[in-house]
Amino acid sequence: MAGERLKKQIEFICEADKLKNIFRQSKIHDGSRRENDAEHSWHLALMAFILSEYSKEPDIDLLKVMKMCIIHDIIEIDAGDTFCYDPQANLDKKEREEKAADRLFSILPEDQAKELRSLWEEFDAMQTPESRFAAALDRVQPVLLNYLNKGGTWQEHGIKKEQVINRNKHIKDGAPELWDFISQIIEDAVNKKYLHP
Amino acid sequence: MAGERLKKQIEFICEADKLKNIFRQSKIHDGSRRENDAEHSWHLALMAFILSEYSKEPDIDLLKVMKMCIIHDIIEIDAGDTFCYDPQANLDKKEREEKAADRLFSILPEDQAKELRSLWEEFDAMQTPESRFAAALDRVQPVLLNYLNKGGTWQEHGIKKEQVINRNKHIKDGAPELWDFISQIIEDAVNKKYLHP
Repeated sequence: MAGERLKKQIEFICEADKLKNIFRQSKIHDGSRRENDAEHSWHLALMAFILSEYSKEPDIDLLKVMKMCIIHDIIEIDAGDTFCYDPQANLDKKEREEKAADRLFSILPEDQAKELRSLWEEFDAMQTPESRFAAALDRVQPVLLNYLNKGGTWQEHGIKKEQVINRNKHIKDGAPELWDFISQIIEDAVNKKYLHP
Repeated sequence: MAGERLKKQIEFICEADKLKNIFRQSKIHDGSRRENDAEHSWHLALMAFILSEYSKEPDIDLLKVMKMCIIHDIIEIDAGDTFCYDPQANLDKKEREEKAADRLFSILPEDQAKELRSLWEEFDAMQTPESRFAAALDRVQPVLLNYLNKGGTWQEHGIKKEQVINRNKHIKDGAPELWDFISQIIEDAVNKKYLHP
């Protein structure tokens, strides 16, 4: 019989599969459907791997960044995805997410529950080089998708350039060169009428 | 203007988004739809993080394992998913995948193209502790999904217990305790009639 520890770990891994059913506002590159949190998290981890040289602070712990990317949205299994441009839904976001973290991470053995909780809190607080870089990627990715699918979510919700800039400008705290690049993408999106001026 | 290097990296990250449209045979936990390669890769990276203590060889390089999990299926953007129980489709699998690797990894700057190609080849060859562990996870995951969704792919294709054992027994080369666990799952799946004896 498998030990209690392994059983808990497998239970968490099975529960985590539900992240594949949590859909975000962003659509994938071809605009054919919304992106789910699991594939979004994969994309961030890939970006962390490929783009780590652009972290504002050098010599970051890439393993920690990739772990953060993989687990940062797991709490949305219970808390759901909160659309970033919806002020009403953002009012009780913190409370919903804390409750979700309590339930979900506690499925794991205690040491791992602590590690994942702590990584998630670190990601959210953006007070360390790793979390600022991971948070920057979490902003870069949907801008790239919206650009690829010709302004999908921006068009759908009548989002304006200024809102996109305000939402994403903290990319520069984690990865200044990526912010320069994304600023150009936003400008180009306006020129191509993917985004309202 | 963004440098040539960053442009190549972003192009690769955008191209990689197509992995979200490559669907596997396995269905997700609730059986509602097939799993795509991007979310599958996310699930493996999460498993690597949570289950690294079960690697047959201790002190593996977890960052390397997670990188492998994230990139191991990217070549399927061109080569497609090859169903493991389809001998015909497996005949030219190697050739299709090599060609895909040539195109896809070469989008990246040369140093990263080399790193990803080398990680993918290492994963495929299963000659290192990290690749044997990652390959074990790549087998464990679909068995868990098939068990969760009450035998989805097994039922659909009339797969028998012996085929599942033959396909998955090399899990023990990378993670013997996980193979013990998966053997019990397979036994239980037969008892519950999810899998033909």
